[in-house]
Amino acid sequence: MSYSKNIEPCVAVLDSDISNWDKETDVAIVGFGGAGGCAAISAADNKAKVELFEVASASGGSTALSSAEIYLGGSGGTRVQKACGFQDSTEDMFNYMMMCAGPQADEKKIRNYCEHAVEHFDWLTDTLGVPFKDSFHEKRAIMCLTNDGLLYTGSEKAYPFSQKAKPCPRGHNLYVEGDNGGPMFMRIVTENVERRENINVNYECRALTLVVDKDKNVVGLIVRENQKQLAVKTKGGVILCAGGFVMNEDMVKKFAPKLSVGTQPIGNPGDTGAGILMGMGAGGSTVNMHEGFISLPFYPPASMTYGVAINDKGQRFINEDVYHGRLGQFAIEQQSDRLYYIVTVEHYDDYEQSSYLGAPVAATGESIAELESELNLRTGTLQHTLQVYNEDCMNGEDTLFHKSSEWMQPLNPPLVTLDLTPGRGAFLPYFTLGGLDTLPTGEVVNASGKVISGLFAAGRNACGVVRTAAGYSSGMSVGDATFSGRLAGIQAANGLTK
Amino acid sequence: MSYSKNIEPCVAVLDSDISNWDKETDVAIVGFGGAGGCAAISAADNKAKVELFEVASASGGSTALSSAEIYLGGSGGTRVQKACGFQDSTEDMFNYMMMCAGPQADEKKIRNYCEHAVEHFDWLTDTLGVPFKDSFHEKRAIMCLTNDGLLYTGSEKAYPFSQKAKPCPRGHNLYVEGDNGGPMFMRIVTENVERRENINVNYECRALTLVVDKDKNVVGLIVRENQKQLAVKTKGGVILCAGGFVMNEDMVKKFAPKLSVGTQPIGNPGDTGAGILMGMGAGGSTVNMHEGFISLPFYPPASMTYGVAINDKGQRFINEDVYHGRLGQFAIEQQSDRLYYIVTVEHYDDYEQSSYLGAPVAATGESIAELESELNLRTGTLQHTLQVYNEDCMNGEDTLFHKSSEWMQPLNPPLVTLDLTPGRGAFLPYFTLGGLDTLPTGEVVNASGKVISGLFAAGRNACGVVRTAAGYSSGMSVGDATFSGRLAGIQAANGLTK
Repeated sequence: MSYSKNIEPCVAVLDSDISNWDKETDVAIVGFGGAGGCAAISAADNKAKVELFEVASASGGSTALSSAEIYLGGSGGTRVQKACGFQDSTEDMFNYMMMCAGPQADEKKIRNYCEHAVEHFDWLTDTLGVPFKDSFHEKRAIMCLTNDGLLYTGSEKAYPFSQKAKPCPRGHNLYVEGDNGGPMFMRIVTENVERRENINVNYECRALTLVVDKDKNVVGLIVRENQKQLAVKTKGGVILCAGGFVMNEDMVKKFAPKLSVGTQPIGNPGDTGAGILMGMGAGGSTVNMHEGFISLPFYPPASMTYGVAINDKGQRFINEDVYHGRLGQFAIEQQSDRLYYIVTVEHYDDYEQSSYLGAPVAATGESIAELESELNLRTGTLQHTLQVYNEDCMNGEDTLFHKSSEWMQPLNPPLVTLDLTPGRGAFLPYFTLGGLDTLPTGEVVNASGKVISGLFAAGRNACGVVRTAAGYSSGMSVGDATFSGRLAGIQAANGLTK
Repeated sequence: MSYSKNIEPCVAVLDSDISNWDKETDVAIVGFGGAGGCAAISAADNKAKVELFEVASASGGSTALSSAEIYLGGSGGTRVQKACGFQDSTEDMFNYMMMCAGPQADEKKIRNYCEHAVEHFDWLTDTLGVPFKDSFHEKRAIMCLTNDGLLYTGSEKAYPFSQKAKPCPRGHNLYVEGDNGGPMFMRIVTENVERRENINVNYECRALTLVVDKDKNVVGLIVRENQKQLAVKTKGGVILCAGGFVMNEDMVKKFAPKLSVGTQPIGNPGDTGAGILMGMGAGGSTVNMHEGFISLPFYPPASMTYGVAINDKGQRFINEDVYHGRLGQFAIEQQSDRLYYIVTVEHYDDYEQSSYLGAPVAATGESIAELESELNLRTGTLQHTLQVYNEDCMNGEDTLFHKSSEWMQPLNPPLVTLDLTPGRGAFLPYFTLGGLDTLPTGEVVNASGKVISGLFAAGRNACGVVRTAAGYSSGMSVGDATFSGRLAGIQAANGLTK
């Protein structure tokens, strides 16, 4: 190609400025993680010629780094759900996911996801060959370290979700021991990509910006490979699958500053937001850019759930049987100089050490009054809180926060208190949940909701079904990434025959 | 002009598609409210020829509907501050405003505002002729109904602000009786505009979209007047001053869904976000789109401040001597089915009626236990909360939330309780606080922070110094709008001589 102007992701290039095209393809895909891989496979299976561009020297993306739990259900249940004796209704799944997304919910996207999640499961197993064991992991966990195929991965059984949606486990875990789902999943996806002759993968190739015609249709992109800029023309469009922006400090500060209390960005080094910027440069709108996943992992062991979280007023602020992301979100919203987690020495289990995932032990008390004093809480406050809590435990009902009776046992000394205060050692992983606004098909829309012809986005490059840490459940990211990638691939390929 | 394609605000038009220009000017300004008026005046005073476009049939915008308090100080104090015996330091004002904006703060913009706020005051008085009386209004108020020139309009004296910034009143109120500052201010601005021969005002003229050249510089705009589309060419750029998007339900739902609990959008019908969309269409980035002002006005009378706000766990959650917007923000963040405000019958003052600003009286109690029971609170919770509170009142220190001792008086029955729960009657005014990302000069930047040549934004069309209800203070909007408008006008005019 020949293009002399300075190129930046968030400014699209006009096709009239491209003197010659170096490559032509039906569909170009940016990013070879879970979303990009699935987009490539489905586009190829729908007869499109695909060029896949990945900046790293191998496939993987953030999906390979994850546990690759996949949140699926509805329609009576997936094969695994049914085999484990669970019947899952689309409506329960929809109600749950709508509550999870809160006021930011994209109802159409969630509806589409819930109605087609079982179909997606079947595609993963039958077309890709992803293995799931028909077994249920009963223990409360963040990730499954056994090879069991199904577990609860969110707040399904917790208040207020359980009030409006019948709980059902929807976290699908790959048939592999240990936390090895991500690498296994991406190996399978990569083999599927390599098997397809109409997909060409370009590794170590960075997408720089999109190319638009004068009517703002996306007609290609510019990439850099071996220090050379190449212009790639697309007949069926570009699918952006380049991840979120958690690794871009400037973007996090500008768009999602609340995440700056986090201690550990979760993602791969390519999560720089470049794909989001490219979409913006072609007129795409972003939504939910301020939101992210942020978590205070306080279990396992599951027995930690018997404890209570309190602020520096000695008040509880959440039902502690929720998913750790919800606790993290509520925690950072507390107007409090300190946050503590109090649990019996017995339930602290084998974690009898000076810290838990970085959270230092703030105090241990032989009496509640002693603990209250050691924590510098106002006299009477913690005593009142635990008196109410312990009474409720005896009565089997959390009258204030509605923690499930299953996790209600009196907090009798000796007690351990962890200091969960952000900035004082506790591990706070985080990633972004904002991105390009898309239709359920993956088509990117502008700020007025109008489709930008030739532009698609999937995975974290788009803003998906999950929108806040307060409603996050493990498996929603890889579920959403693979689902939205697959749909965008179909949509782009089908556009070719129009 | 002749332009056949469909025009929408968020898609800029290419200048090569404009066959002829209908108007030419140095600087075009969209919107004749506080920001647009000040931008026009300063651009004109810096030798630019100005075309001002206003969709309504008269000037005013949301500024005319407001109380037109103006938040100013620093540099030792404005004339009014000094005359009232207050010395205000730039550093205190800066620290206060940085805390107000929270993690979303734009430090450079706040710094510039604080350093030049007194200069702005002088411009308002000396150049425009805005009158302020050198008198201090002592009573806690949301708006000043007397003609006093100065009052506290935020949370300056409240925790945690008072800990890090010496309190000083910065709300400047026009020399007029009653809540009539807005109309008076806009009358003065309008007279100033009309006096200047190099400003031409076009009423009933709607800006449709921006015009860019192929290098993405903004070189004009398209407007509609008398059912005709006109192409306006600009040498010095376009300043977007068309307000926020509170009147655009779709945009609020998409970008700031949390505001949907509000009952009353605050703004003029032209606050449709069209100016923000126009900026986006030319490559401008937005920031803070999810944020807004939302308030539960629970005073005056100031004596209401002696009360406490509680959630459905019977817990307090804020120091009640803060600004009403901060209480509103904290209230909607509570995970609570009900929110109450409890005050003595004595301090309920002459508001002894069945509701206060729409908030119904939920209960009145001759004893705290009775009140607790009437409110269906868990036995013991409210009693504990008020016991602690009343003890703290006796000791003159709010040990939990640090309400100023000035407002600490025991809550002894008989007590009145208002139901502040959103959706149950309480008045919750709201408006948006997100917009185009700008430099302190008013230049709009893209998502990478690069200036878009020829494009400026001010007032709510931009994202200004105030970023959240939790740190809002009356006067920050009109202060910011007039300040940013004036600076954008200077910047655009000065660009002409380059």
